[in-house]
Amino acid sequence: MIRFECDYLEGACPEIIKKFEETNLVQTQGYSEDEYCDLAREKIKRICKTPNAEVQFLVGGTQTNMTVIASILKPYQGVISPEAGHINVHETGAIESTGHKVLVINTKDGKLRDIDIKEIYERYYDDENRQHVVQPGMVYISYPTENGLIYSKEELQNLYKTCKECKLPLYIDGARLGYGLMSEKSDMDISDIARNCDVFYIGGTKVGALFGEAVVITNENLQENFRYYMKQGGAMLAKGRLLGIQFDVLFENNLYFDISKHAINMAMKIKKAFTDKGYQFLFDSYTNQQFPIISNKELKKLSDKYSFSLWEKVDENNSVARFCTSWATKEENVNKLIKDIKEL
Amino acid sequence: MIRFECDYLEGACPEIIKKFEETNLVQTQGYSEDEYCDLAREKIKRICKTPNAEVQFLVGGTQTNMTVIASILKPYQGVISPEAGHINVHETGAIESTGHKVLVINTKDGKLRDIDIKEIYERYYDDENRQHVVQPGMVYISYPTENGLIYSKEELQNLYKTCKECKLPLYIDGARLGYGLMSEKSDMDISDIARNCDVFYIGGTKVGALFGEAVVITNENLQENFRYYMKQGGAMLAKGRLLGIQFDVLFENNLYFDISKHAINMAMKIKKAFTDKGYQFLFDSYTNQQFPIISNKELKKLSDKYSFSLWEKVDENNSVARFCTSWATKEENVNKLIKDIKEL
Amino acid sequence: MIRFECDYLEGACPEIIKKFEETNLVQTQGYSEDEYCDLAREKIKRICKTPNAEVQFLVGGTQTNMTVIASILKPYQGVISPEAGHINVHETGAIESTGHKVLVINTKDGKLRDIDIKEIYERYYDDENRQHVVQPGMVYISYPTENGLIYSKEELQNLYKTCKECKLPLYIDGARLGYGLMSEKSDMDISDIARNCDVFYIGGTKVGALFGEAVVITNENLQENFRYYMKQGGAMLAKGRLLGIQFDVLFENNLYFDISKHAINMAMKIKKAFTDKGYQFLFDSYTNQQFPIISNKELKKLSDKYSFSLWEKVDENNSVARFCTSWATKEENVNKLIKDIKEL
Amino acid sequence: MIRFECDYLEGACPEIIKKFEETNLVQTQGYSEDEYCDLAREKIKRICKTPNAEVQFLVGGTQTNMTVIASILKPYQGVISPEAGHINVHETGAIESTGHKVLVINTKDGKLRDIDIKEIYERYYDDENRQHVVQPGMVYISYPTENGLIYSKEELQNLYKTCKECKLPLYIDGARLGYGLMSEKSDMDISDIARNCDVFYIGGTKVGALFGEAVVITNENLQENFRYYMKQGGAMLAKGRLLGIQFDVLFENNLYFDISKHAINMAMKIKKAFTDKGYQFLFDSYTNQQFPIISNKELKKLSDKYSFSLWEKVDENNSVARFCTSWATKEENVNKLIKDIKEL
Repeated sequence: MIRFECDYLEGACPEIIKKFEETNLVQTQGYSEDEYCDLAREKIKRICKTPNAEVQFLVGGTQTNMTVIASILKPYQGVISPEAGHINVHETGAIESTGHKVLVINTKDGKLRDIDIKEIYERYYDDENRQHVVQPGMVYISYPTENGLIYSKEELQNLYKTCKECKLPLYIDGARLGYGLMSEKSDMDISDIARNCDVFYIGGTKVGALFGEAVVITNENLQENFRYYMKQGGAMLAKGRLLGIQFDVLFENNLYFDISKHAINMAMKIKKAFTDKGYQFLFDSYTNQQFPIISNKELKKLSDKYSFSLWEKVDENNSVARFCTSWATKEENVNKLIKDIKEL
Repeated sequence: MIRFECDYLEGACPEIIKKFEETNLVQTQGYSEDEYCDLAREKIKRICKTPNAEVQFLVGGTQTNMTVIASILKPYQGVISPEAGHINVHETGAIESTGHKVLVINTKDGKLRDIDIKEIYERYYDDENRQHVVQPGMVYISYPTENGLIYSKEELQNLYKTCKECKLPLYIDGARLGYGLMSEKSDMDISDIARNCDVFYIGGTKVGALFGEAVVITNENLQENFRYYMKQGGAMLAKGRLLGIQFDVLFENNLYFDISKHAINMAMKIKKAFTDKGYQFLFDSYTNQQFPIISNKELKKLSDKYSFSLWEKVDENNSVARFCTSWATKEENVNKLIKDIKEL
Repeated sequence: MIRFECDYLEGACPEIIKKFEETNLVQTQGYSEDEYCDLAREKIKRICKTPNAEVQFLVGGTQTNMTVIASILKPYQGVISPEAGHINVHETGAIESTGHKVLVINTKDGKLRDIDIKEIYERYYDDENRQHVVQPGMVYISYPTENGLIYSKEELQNLYKTCKECKLPLYIDGARLGYGLMSEKSDMDISDIARNCDVFYIGGTKVGALFGEAVVITNENLQENFRYYMKQGGAMLAKGRLLGIQFDVLFENNLYFDISKHAINMAMKIKKAFTDKGYQFLFDSYTNQQFPIISNKELKKLSDKYSFSLWEKVDENNSVARFCTSWATKEENVNKLIKDIKEL
Repeated sequence: MIRFECDYLEGACPEIIKKFEETNLVQTQGYSEDEYCDLAREKIKRICKTPNAEVQFLVGGTQTNMTVIASILKPYQGVISPEAGHINVHETGAIESTGHKVLVINTKDGKLRDIDIKEIYERYYDDENRQHVVQPGMVYISYPTENGLIYSKEELQNLYKTCKECKLPLYIDGARLGYGLMSEKSDMDISDIARNCDVFYIGGTKVGALFGEAVVITNENLQENFRYYMKQGGAMLAKGRLLGIQFDVLFENNLYFDISKHAINMAMKIKKAFTDKGYQFLFDSYTNQQFPIISNKELKKLSDKYSFSLWEKVDENNSVARFCTSWATKEENVNKLIKDIKEL
């Protein structure tokens, strides 16, 4: 079975395993206060061009989302999110478990735009009874989105401008950040992301690391107490150096972006194979997730050799499948898949 | 200014004030463990035909909703609610503050039906990744709804049958229960409500009391620990007898239903006045809330003498207003309003 | 049975019932935004000499404590409290239910002193691993204490000075405030309380009202969002005017203090009766709670006619009882009790 | 600088790093539903002699404690813990952040005994006002304790017997489980632990793993929904196999116990060195933590070459230090320390 069902099927870049081996018996302080973490922090701040950012390392995505969001909101505030946002649909109510409502905006493509924020903001502050309504306290988006789409620089700049006008901090979930930035359709680099939000995270779990997410808090007002929230939520790793080592390796010699580019190349080959054969897509994605619409009969045929996700039903006979590539996807496996697509 | 903007503008039925006066210096135990509360409990259980129900008294609606819901759900569960449900839109995130997501169903008229429950239930249990999704744990509706509509007995029976099949306790928010039951379109009495849910509350604040809601827990599995939740949430009134006295008076000599009927009569007069004059309504309500669609110019005219709520904008020139009647609405005031409607 | 077991056995001062009657059918806005509330607010601010205070009305003590404390603390902070503090022992974990630890200080008499605060503050900030420890975020005391004791002005001034040095807001639970201030041993008036803390509440439930507590937030930094916390916690009364009316009556013509003085007079008569007969007390209280140490045999005898609390066992044969007086205690009942004490 | 300040200074057993390398590009399912996790589960259940246990893997200790405890308690319940318990003092209020009070018992040696549980249980159920008090819902101990002490089999059996009589599930925090079981004073093996509690965890972070704790839920009533709590708390690792691989290696060929034994041997050498030289200890520990009482002057001298924790001040001139060994402690470093102790 060749697996394309998600982007965390394998371990980590061999460079990381090697570094774990080399440093294994070095003694360091705990809780990410060691030299490896400091090295990784420096590299990240340099590449993001944010010398005053606070960089902290957490283990996984849900943990990161709930910690960041709970650290920003007041208890009676909620977080604005697209309806398809990961925090709204795939975290078992982690955000609500910290006491906060997810304020959902339903948009056609799952992206939020300045006008959406403006509207929810004005509706709240125009309401005379607003003490009875959850106050919007921040904005959550992901880049790329759950649907594999990306924001253009202009879209993000406009969104962030409005967020600042509304005094709503903007948080970008970058679980697949590398796969967004290396998309051929992207007109941003990581410093553009850093410049156009208050806090974001660089996903490691899905992009080359064994595990780990690097939170970059660029807004200095949000930095102060973040580590207390981490510890209280069980999100401060004892051997924090493991996170530092991984991000240090990922941001050495452009590794993070090179492996992301590989995933994109593999995804584009799959996209082309489906397109050439006349298939439609649910979303026109140029990132590492592809959502072709396929007949159930053909899906069954593919599922003998390949694993993938069933995204949603289209009608009685057709469904949307999701194929993911990653830093670890082998080109020979992609070639096999392409061959089988051609023969469908 | 004559006020129709909500149904809690005045104090309480004079019978209640009188009983407060009479009993004022009697000494009783605290925390609703006194004889007045017991009397009220007995009356409520008799009229509901639920001898084994647990009846507890709380002070207000939001407090009651959050206490009941938190007492039923497991931490990783959410409560299914219509999008317009009070818990979803007008309680400043009280439910989320107890850690639970409100799982929203969007229906045209704001009522939930068996098929809605079935669908959300099956979607959850058909999902292989359901450990990542909030588990539906109960169902919330209100009777009448926020829009003034009521469920027929058949609708409620079907809904409850499905809830039981799905093992989802059904909770009915009866903030305006009397105004639903005394509607000319209602085919239920209070024992039908009691028989077709696991827990509901009889609203006092909006129906004749100074304050207070009587929670009736008919499902014996949900009774055991309710008072702990009350105390922990600051919802156990020290002089609990004040609640007992009020409900004792309300359920003496059919008072609760008589005063509710009065409110309905007043509302129907207003409805007729608007209808006769050719106005449309947003919802075809036969309860104490009326939602006529009126031009902004006419609204402005009415607002010189009357207060009411602006429910929503229809277009540039027209809006939906909400006029509420209650147990305390004076017929002379209604007559004045009707006269002015005629002259619009 | 004549009852002395607590101070909320009866209804309210007749003046309050009368005012409820008079105002019953007046129409007002909800949620404490009416004119009665404003009148009460003005009177309270005047007598407290705090023109810039924010005054809000809640229904009960536990509700008030949890709302005030949750509105002040950051999620990773805790509240310093004496071990015997009401929030630590008699609120079913209400504070913890909002996510906060109660940081307990054990002192001989249940009072906190400047040195206790200094010590817990320094221990925290001297700890290199303090990110792993709950951060002290505020201080809670009650006046009078659970044991019926009061702070002298000097004690309170010193405590507050230290709190300010440590940047720990001081909150005074005044459930029995009147009974402290009218004690013959008190050297403070209500403006001294207001001047020496950041927020306190004036207890109504135990001092003349049917229910209700008036929160006075003197520290302007803590005022802004308090009403959101109230609503989210189900602590915003729909007919808020009921609270305004009660506090308006209580602060008319010195009523609050006059009725408090009556309770103290009754308590001192009981104290004298026990003292004259040679009984010892667990605490030397000059407020409305008296804690005589009595043999179990004598307690049993008294319990035929009187109800009181069993506070704690002293040894096999003796116990501490608690006798409470209140604004409603009848002198004839006290005289009967005194007669029976004499004949023990 | 040679470090003895804690037991998580290095990476992991080389066998684990090697296995990570070997399996790195194998594709597996996520969220601990892979074959490595299943292998580890089988080994753990076999060695614990608990074929029906549920075994789940989490990343760290605080995360494990808060997830297990929140999964067992009802919202109005608290967890009984020794005052020195890790959950009470070193987790930044993580337990309270889930809404639960830690019910503290102060014992001389930091261990809980049957009689302590009996007493807190009876005090609660004898209290007529217990609805106002946090209900004890479970018991937390650690093995070994924070002070390095262990329970004898008889002590644990008695404790568990009482817990069962009181219907209080017993949870054992085994962050250093191996170091307790391999102590020369231990009269238990891991199956004795499993047999005498409802749930415990096998610490990996401090005992040979890079990170990871294996929760063993022996009480079948507590198993059902544990994974929902994990996901909701951000405690479900995406590449869960990393945890399975580590525990599979640790429980292959007795590795977990062999490396634990090494740590104990190293600790006993240090203990002997201090004893021989006439030093006293704060606790008579036979596990991997040693607490000698040393003059500040001598401590300063040692601190030139060695790092250790300052546990507490004894008096002006003397302090308690904590020296930890672990699976990774090098004998040559211990020998250097011993030499320097001799020369103090």
